[in-house]
This record gives sequence, C-alpha cells and structure tokens, in this order.
Amino acid sequence: MSQADIALIGLAVMGQNLALNIADHGFSICVYNRSAGRTRDLLAAEEERGNLHGAYTLEELVDKLRRPRKILLMIRAGAPVDQTIEQLLPLLEEGDILIDGGNSRYLDTNRRCETLARKGIRFVGSGISGGEEGARHGPSIMPGGDPEAWPEIKTILQAIAAKVDGVPCCHWVGEGGAGHYVKMVHNGIEYGDMQLIAEAYHMMKRGLGLSAARMAEIFAEWNQGKLDSYLIEITANILNTLDDDGEPLLDKILDRAGQKGTGKWTGISSMDLGVPLTLIGEAVYARCLSARKSEREKAEALYGKPHRRFDGDTERVLPTLKDALYASKIISYTQGYMLMREAAEAYGWNLNYGDIALMWRGGCIIRSRFLDNIKAAYSRNAKLESLLLDEFFRDALMAAEPGWRRAVELGIGLGVPLPAFSSALAFFDGYRSGRLPANLIQAQRDYFGAHTYERVDRPEGEFFHTDWTGSGGVAKSTSYNV
Amino acid sequence: MSQADIALIGLAVMGQNLALNIADHGFSICVYNRSAGRTRDLLAAEEERGNLHGAYTLEELVDKLRRPRKILLMIRAGAPVDQTIEQLLPLLEEGDILIDGGNSRYLDTNRRCETLARKGIRFVGSGISGGEEGARHGPSIMPGGDPEAWPEIKTILQAIAAKVDGVPCCHWVGEGGAGHYVKMVHNGIEYGDMQLIAEAYHMMKRGLGLSAARMAEIFAEWNQGKLDSYLIEITANILNTLDDDGEPLLDKILDRAGQKGTGKWTGISSMDLGVPLTLIGEAVYARCLSARKSEREKAEALYGKPHRRFDGDTERVLPTLKDALYASKIISYTQGYMLMREAAEAYGWNLNYGDIALMWRGGCIIRSRFLDNIKAAYSRNAKLESLLLDEFFRDALMAAEPGWRRAVELGIGLGVPLPAFSSALAFFDGYRSGRLPANLIQAQRDYFGAHTYERVDRPEGEFFHTDWTGSGGVAKSTSYNV
Repeated sequence: MSQADIALIGLAVMGQNLALNIADHGFSICVYNRSAGRTRDLLAAEEERGNLHGAYTLEELVDKLRRPRKILLMIRAGAPVDQTIEQLLPLLEEGDILIDGGNSRYLDTNRRCETLARKGIRFVGSGISGGEEGARHGPSIMPGGDPEAWPEIKTILQAIAAKVDGVPCCHWVGEGGAGHYVKMVHNGIEYGDMQLIAEAYHMMKRGLGLSAARMAEIFAEWNQGKLDSYLIEITANILNTLDDDGEPLLDKILDRAGQKGTGKWTGISSMDLGVPLTLIGEAVYARCLSARKSEREKAEALYGKPHRRFDGDTERVLPTLKDALYASKIISYTQGYMLMREAAEAYGWNLNYGDIALMWRGGCIIRSRFLDNIKAAYSRNAKLESLLLDEFFRDALMAAEPGWRRAVELGIGLGVPLPAFSSALAFFDGYRSGRLPANLIQAQRDYFGAHTYERVDRPEGEFFHTDWTGSGGVAKSTSYNV
Repeated sequence: MSQADIALIGLAVMGQNLALNIADHGFSICVYNRSAGRTRDLLAAEEERGNLHGAYTLEELVDKLRRPRKILLMIRAGAPVDQTIEQLLPLLEEGDILIDGGNSRYLDTNRRCETLARKGIRFVGSGISGGEEGARHGPSIMPGGDPEAWPEIKTILQAIAAKVDGVPCCHWVGEGGAGHYVKMVHNGIEYGDMQLIAEAYHMMKRGLGLSAARMAEIFAEWNQGKLDSYLIEITANILNTLDDDGEPLLDKILDRAGQKGTGKWTGISSMDLGVPLTLIGEAVYARCLSARKSEREKAEALYGKPHRRFDGDTERVLPTLKDALYASKIISYTQGYMLMREAAEAYGWNLNYGDIALMWRGGCIIRSRFLDNIKAAYSRNAKLESLLLDEFFRDALMAAEPGWRRAVELGIGLGVPLPAFSSALAFFDGYRSGRLPANLIQAQRDYFGAHTYERVDRPEGEFFHTDWTGSGGVAKSTSYNV
C-alpha cells in the first residue's frame, strides 16, 4: 500500500463514522484502536474500500503515514488523551500534526498546544459535533490550536464537514483552546435548546394534556418556520415513535437526564468570566434536578402533584408556547455569544462570530435556520456588542414578547416548571433595565463590609463609603475592586 | 512583656477589628502588617490596652509568641497566603498552628493542609463572617483543617465569636478545606439573600412606586416576624438614610454590583458536583448583568423601559412579596444545604448540618431567626435528605405558595425582573414533580448520540438504545455513564 493521508485513533461511535467519512471522500486513512477487535471488525465490514487501512500498533500506524503525519485522536477526553500523546511522542517528528477531535476541555487544549509546540509538534484541538450521523455524513468541525497546522489539514477537514449552501461547516477558529472552547459553548447552547424544547413538551403534556401524536404534529409544524432546526425535527420523530406495545416510546423513558460535562464546563466558564449565562445555567441545573428522581418522588408524595390541567382553549396557548420557545432561544444564543466575546478577550483569541454561526448551520446538533439570522447580524456589524442590540433580533423579541409572557404566566399558574423560559424572560427584563436594584446590593456591601460604592451623579471609578450606623470605624476597604 | 497567646498578620478592616476583639477578651495578641504604618497607627490608637502588641518583622512576631505558636493570617486570599506561609515556615517549629482566616478557596485550603501537615505544621482554614462590625464584636467563625489544632485554638476562637442564647457561633467544621467550604456556601447564600431583598425592593420601587420611607417601614415590619434577619434590618436602615440634599441616599448609588469571588466559587462548585443551585446561580448572574450598565442603558433606549406601574391595590401586593421572599429563601437554603451534603460526600467530610445552622445564627451576614428552624429540622432528623422534605418547611412553603405565585405572575406582567423569585418557584415546581420532561432529553441524546436511556418499566441501570431513524449504525455508546 502507499502511505496514508491521515490516521485515526479510537474506534468508538464517532471515530468509526469519521473514518468512513474520510475514506468516502477519497483520502486514504489508517485506523488504530487500543483493542484490536474493533479495528478488525471495522475493516471486515468495510473491506471493499481501498483507502481504509488498519494498524495494530502505534509504530505500525505511524509508519504507514505520509509526512508530515496527521493523526486524529477520537478518544475519551481527559487523561487518555495525555497518555496517548505520551505514547505517540517518541514516534513522531518535528512538524507532525496531532488533532484532538474529542470533547476535551479548552484549558487542557491550551496546555497541550503549549507543551507540544515546544517539542515541534503542531497540535490542533478540534470540536466535532453531529453525533453518530454527523460524523458519518458531515459534521460541524471547529478546529483551533497551532495556526501552522491549518493549511495542512484544511482540505481533509473541509471535505468531510457538512456543507450548507456549498459552504463547509468548518473554519479555523483561533489559537490554543479556541476550537474546543467554541465547541463547548456549542454544547452549552445544545443543553439550552434541549431544555427549551423539553419545557414546551412538558407544558403541552402536563399542562394541556395533549397526546404524543398531536405534539408530534405541532413540532413538525414548528419545524417549517423560524424554529426550523434539527432538534425540533427529531423531537417530532421521537414523539411519533411507538414502543412494541403500540404506546409512545417516550412515555417509557426514564426522566433522569445524563450529562458528560461540556454543559457544566460552559456554566463554570461563565461564572469564571462573570457572564450572565442564565439560560444554559438553568438547563444544566434542570438535568441535575432530573437526576434526583427518588427525592422528587418523595416530594411529590409530600406536596401533591404540582400541576393542574389547563381548562381553557388549548389552541390559543400553542402560539404563546412557540413565542416563548423562540424568544428564549434568542436569549440563550445572545448569552452564549456574550460568553465567547468575554472568553476571546480573556484568552486573546480573535474570534469571527459570523463564521462561528456558519459552522453551526450544518452537521451539528444545534443546526438551524436561526443561525443564518445570527450570521446576518454579524455581517451587518462584525463588532456587535450583543445580539439583543441587533435590529432583527429586537423586532423578533418585541413580536414574541406578549405570547412569551403569557406562556410563562400560564406555567406559573398551572404549576408546570418552566425554569429556562422564565429565566430567559427575567434576563430580558433585566437586560433592558437601565436601572436595576443592584444599588441596594452595593449599599448593603458598604454597610456590612465597607466595600464602598459609586454614585450615579459622580464619575465612575470614584468610590464612596458611608458610616451607615454612625458607629462604624474609619477603616475603609482599600482592597476593593469592582 | 510576657509572650503573647496569638499573633495576627494583616491589618486591613477585618484584621484590625479581630485583633481588638481578641485583646478585649483578655488574650494577649501581637500584630504584624507588611507596611509598618498600620501597626503603629493601631497601637497608637489603642495604647491603653496592655495585651495588644506589635511586631515589625516576622522574626520578631514569632519570637513574641508562646509555644505552640498560633498565627492568624488575615490577608488577601490567593498567592499572598502562600507567600506569607513560605516566609513563616523557616521561623516555625513542629506543632505550631497557622490559621488562615481569609476568604481562601477551599481547594487551596485542602492543598495547604496536606503540604503543611508533611512539615509538622498544623493548618486551619477558617471562614470568618460578619464584616467590620462582626469582626469587632463577635463574628461567626467556621474553622476546619487539622483536627489536632482545634483543642489549642478553641478557647480563643469561641471567646471572640458571636453568641446566641449563650452558644458561640463557632464549631469545628471538619478536615481539610471544610471550614472554608462552609464559609463559601455561607457567602453564596448571602448573595442569594441579598438578591431576594433586592427583588422585593425593585418590585416595590418600580412596580408599586413606593417611597424609600414607606419601603423602610415595610422592611422594618418584616424584620419583626419570620423574616427577622440582619440583612432585612440593614435594608430598612439603608432606605432611611438620606443624602446631604435630603433625598434617599440609595437613589444615588450606582446599580452595578461588585463581587469578590466566593459567590461564583459556590456556583462553580455546584456545577462541578451536579447540584441544582439555581437561586444562588441566578443571584451571581444578576450581579454580572448589573455590571453591564452601559449595555443595559443601550438596550433600554432600544426596547423602551421594561416595567409598567401597577394600578391596583398596593397593600394587597405587599403580603405576596413577603411570601415570595420567604418561600424563595427556603428554596435557597435548601439548595445550599444540598450542595454541602454533596461536597461532604465528595470530599469525605463529616459535616454536622445542625451545627452549621448554629454557627450562622449570629455574627455573620446571613444571621436570622430562620436558622433556628433549620437547626430544629436537623434536630428532628440529622440525616434529613433535603430541607424541603422537613414538615416545618413543607408547611411554610404550602402557606406561602399562593402569594409567591401571584407575586411572580405580577412581576412578569409588569415587566419587573424577578430572576431569583421565579427561578426558586420553577425549582419548587420541578422538585415536587415525580416526572419531569427529562425523558425527552434522554430520547434526544439517544437519537443523535446513541447515548442510551433507561426505562420507567425496567430496573435502573439497564440501558436501551433505539434505532430511531431506522438507518443508524449498530454502534452503541459504551462509554456512557449516568
């Protein structure tokens, strides 16, 4: 055999499908898996393909690669990535390229970029989204790290990525951990989108008493308009899926959501950087609450079922739910982009926000028509401070607002929990408040901790302290820092 | 002079006041500050006290101490603590005790305990709350770390701590960083309490149009009953404080809240441990949003003022706000205790939840009558899974629920943002839902990522995968882990 264009290590779901995707696009690829059985199985199942090869040791894998070698790691994030890098290092040469396509934490990617650069290895941390199907037929790919690696890998990555209107959903994101950061935010947004859909479903099922078939129709209908998105589409399909006994399968599924960490990493980063990422925060917490199933059952027994059935005209409620879902989604993406802006500032990345929307339009889990609107907003103003300050989103929110407000009121009245819808609405009302009650918080902090405050009638940066009780010491908090 | 009982390093607000407090209680104390001026000023101002001494080098400080030496660090958290420890180490002997009384991160305290134990130094990380006044006249003190240090420092710490019903607000918390962890959660709860009061104030001011004087009356009245607490008390005082021009000072204070980090650490820990700490999360995010003042002003110009004035009977709204505040507070403490339970499990601490309530009853910022109810709940059942499952809190929530719901509905109707009130209500409705819509989230995850799901009609721990589209591969996510 001639030497392969690229190697792939790790043949779990994503790795297998990416390998086939790469081979389909005419690149020769050599795969390796720690346990040889998977390699053999994959090659046996796909033997007709001339450009899919296997290796059973890392030495063999590296030997079979054209220089500079390109090795895509599709292994579990965390220590396994470091271990595999350690094993590969003695086999590699200066200029070789390692691509970590797993869900690694951006801080790890920052560190690996630095360490490997010192050894002459070009490291790329690339977010890859799209699940099983995306990996097989075109995922969204978000590469970042050593910019010198990009020209070497661009052709392969853009070839296997999803395309929308002929544009590949793969662009260079930035240095260091930028690619994994953007993927992390993508996943956080995915948590938010899923929670929003779950709340609409919860309201329809528990509040309105709709059947799975009727709900499937509604989601399918919503998928025709501005809510057109992969997650809405599969929700309709899920609602239409029946179990062996002819009942909706969804009703049999345990209501305890798992998570793999990227959602909570997004929340942690938002806390670290001081960005009000309320909606994704609530979505992560909603999964945590769902996990406390037995505690919830005890509470239900103690408090009685929370929700009452709506007895008005269901058909009039549905458009308000759609408004709530759409408006909350705008809030969620606004917050996600806020977070990326703040991270770019903190880590020195030059992110192109329009390109990020383009990357997410296809292949990945949050793909939707909506992302075209975001791209358009950044085309109008590349320096846009916040999506909420863009005219399109302003008009969209103003139009959705009355229904959104009614849907949340109804949920509160019926006792159907809508944590993300209501948190989004509170954020919206807070965001457009020139004055918030934080003046009281500053007064309290000065009262009990001499933390000082600023005044609305004096320049910012001038700090005042009041002896509120008339008995306080003269000591002032000099270490105070806004 | 005879040798001193204890040393204190760092004479900012808290350090100065603690030193005087210690001296007041008959212990001889030697103080040191990096810049000598503060030491001189303090000694000059307080020269009549025979048991307050100064040192101008660390050598002098250590020489003046009785063995085993006890040194209380009241310096800025982070690197300064490590630097000071480094400087002290060559001067100390085996068995000496270092107490870090600052707002150190519990992870740092875990690390310092381990490192110093290996060098024979007994390290204690102690949360101290109460601000300027508390430090001077009796703070809440939450010590943890090397348990062998406790008998040596107990007398001093309990003497200077606040007392409620004769019980000192200072008990041994646990090993390692347990003391700083509990202090961190205290601070998180403080963020929550402050946000809740701020929302009640916001609603009264913007929604109901009440004067500062009237609001002061209302908070003073609330402070007589079940809401009796330091933060409500000072809120009334703040509302009654006038600026030089005779107008309420509060109106002049800039509505941009600062934070020093413990609130966000609490949020980060909750994400890490998977605990739905929604209320404190919203409180931290509300401060972050308040900090974006100029963005909010732009949004207000673009969207128009969010809030309308209520035109009904104001007096009927006030009791609902009180219900909302009280019920939300119960939710916040429930979540905070949930977090401590989970941390105790994760870090191997044996926390006494009733004692923690006792420690917080006096001296600290969140001191309140309410903590007696928490103590009582843990006296009824030391292993209580959640405060919401206690009968007292159940009855309290059921009684407050209708008003709470109406207050949140009103806020939504008027456009007054109540992120913490509404998040608490959504949590309550979710917590008492035996079934949540997380089944849909699990279905979606299985659909796009083959993550598998459990079923309500099969034992937990049995995982299923559905080929939803009829075209998926046979690959299943084997690394899946709830």
